[in-house]
Amino acid sequence: MQNRITTLFGIQYPIIQAGMIWCSGWELASAVSNAGGLGIIGAGSMYPEVLREHIQKVKRATHRPFAVNIPLLYPNIDQHIATVIEERVPIVFTSAGNPSTWTKTLQNEGILVVHVVSNEKFAKKAEDSGVDAIVAEGFEAGGHNGREETTTMVLVPQICNAVKIPVIAAGGVGTGRSMLAAIALGADGVQIGSRFVVSEESSAHPNFKKAILEAGDGNTKLSLKQLTPVRLLKNKFWEEVEQAEKNGASVEELKSLLGRARAKKGMFEGDLEDGELEIGQISGYINAIKPAADIIVEIVLEYTKALQSLKEL
Amino acid sequence: MQNRITTLFGIQYPIIQAGMIWCSGWELASAVSNAGGLGIIGAGSMYPEVLREHIQKVKRATHRPFAVNIPLLYPNIDQHIATVIEERVPIVFTSAGNPSTWTKTLQNEGILVVHVVSNEKFAKKAEDSGVDAIVAEGFEAGGHNGREETTTMVLVPQICNAVKIPVIAAGGVGTGRSMLAAIALGADGVQIGSRFVVSEESSAHPNFKKAILEAGDGNTKLSLKQLTPVRLLKNKFWEEVEQAEKNGASVEELKSLLGRARAKKGMFEGDLEDGELEIGQISGYINAIKPAADIIVEIVLEYTKALQSLKEL
Repeated sequence: MQNRITTLFGIQYPIIQAGMIWCSGWELASAVSNAGGLGIIGAGSMYPEVLREHIQKVKRATHRPFAVNIPLLYPNIDQHIATVIEERVPIVFTSAGNPSTWTKTLQNEGILVVHVVSNEKFAKKAEDSGVDAIVAEGFEAGGHNGREETTTMVLVPQICNAVKIPVIAAGGVGTGRSMLAAIALGADGVQIGSRFVVSEESSAHPNFKKAILEAGDGNTKLSLKQLTPVRLLKNKFWEEVEQAEKNGASVEELKSLLGRARAKKGMFEGDLEDGELEIGQISGYINAIKPAADIIVEIVLEYTKALQSLKEL
Repeated sequence: MQNRITTLFGIQYPIIQAGMIWCSGWELASAVSNAGGLGIIGAGSMYPEVLREHIQKVKRATHRPFAVNIPLLYPNIDQHIATVIEERVPIVFTSAGNPSTWTKTLQNEGILVVHVVSNEKFAKKAEDSGVDAIVAEGFEAGGHNGREETTTMVLVPQICNAVKIPVIAAGGVGTGRSMLAAIALGADGVQIGSRFVVSEESSAHPNFKKAILEAGDGNTKLSLKQLTPVRLLKNKFWEEVEQAEKNGASVEELKSLLGRARAKKGMFEGDLEDGELEIGQISGYINAIKPAADIIVEIVLEYTKALQSLKEL
């Protein structure tokens, strides 16, 4: 496999592991990069010194390209930016914020910049700000999500028509077949989150991994739409949010219900009742914990087989 | 193109035009069937005598297979069933109800039965009831929709794994690329609604067609979730529903707001303010009214071209 994304990043397969809070540290990122994909450290849940430690560890664990995902609304954003520059991180994925603020700063240091969007307008804005590629993330994706609720099937062709730079499809992708579908829609690569949350190298709590394996069809929901929409696994905390919204809770009340460190409590500490469990719709059909390298091999094999059967149609 | 769906229905391309209330009468259905797809009369908005007239007209307009879509919750369901049997309709698509009630009755008359589902559980139930094929309809589809909010990208592979009978993908499909994506996900065919609403032969009001052409990203929303979830184009009526829900409206209040004949008012009579406008997310990138035959040719050409570029990757 060779296309604009493999060439841009210098990787073997156009498979990017999403940078996810509490789940994707140096172990997962280096495992994915060593297996020929692009591993990403999720900096959104890390203090600056923790991020630096993870970057240093990933550099020792792989000689292949890797990336760091930085949510642009992160409170210590200046420190995170300084850290990725000092540590000579080759690629940065930015999300949740204005891509024009930091893109040039990073690129001037020789860092490739990719921005995550969920609608056409922000895709064009990201391209105008000079980013090297875009992640188009659909409604079915886990975690924070767009207000338009546009699904991957609709969003990817729309964004591919709207921009000239490479597009990476995210949301609902976790198998070779869905990767092939994303490429058929015009994407140059895929970003996979949920499937890697249940990899062996993910730092998600074992309780959270187990809950994902047990989840079925319809077990996630886009929630907290009055704050920032976020796709969650349904649990007691999610039910409390639903109930509060039904009772007409204000933004302030919802913020207070959400409180602090809910995601850490759920995803990292394994509190399945009171924690916030961010995961995508494909959790409905993930049913095994595997090493990241096995997941990549499986995806590539299924992709190749599905492409072969398409040709025979 | 030849596969289980083209063989089952005796059609040239595995492209099915969705049976849609107020939009798909005999003119659209016969145009699609004559162009090598499967045209469907949407019986949900027809009185029994109107349905009979449309069936008779479609039989005069094409010698190729066609179908009738019957929502199983239709109040005069017995009459609709009797009509399709008497008129020797070759294929019936059923939706919104229990497939075990009528499937055998229809099949005993030599009629093929296809049932529309939006989750895995109902797909298995439909297969158990003996239907000949399944439509798996994702969250992005227009009109009535499932409560699980599972998107086409996630739903199709899930249902393809769960059943052995042919699966038709619906929701977010309207181009050759998205058809290729659906087939890559494991589907044997596609059902296309929104794209055919803006065909020349559709009976949608010109105002409604124009509104669809002008719609952009995020202009539809899954609405009325307390009743039956339905994807609507945002307009004054939709805003009233949103506002009522924000104010904690009861099911009874919402039913009263919806009232009667809202869909006819909007889609057939062209009242863009007070009418209910059912359409899918892909309305965000439909930008021309074309004859149904041209739409099919365009889809097939784009499919072939996209498949070729996949092979070259």
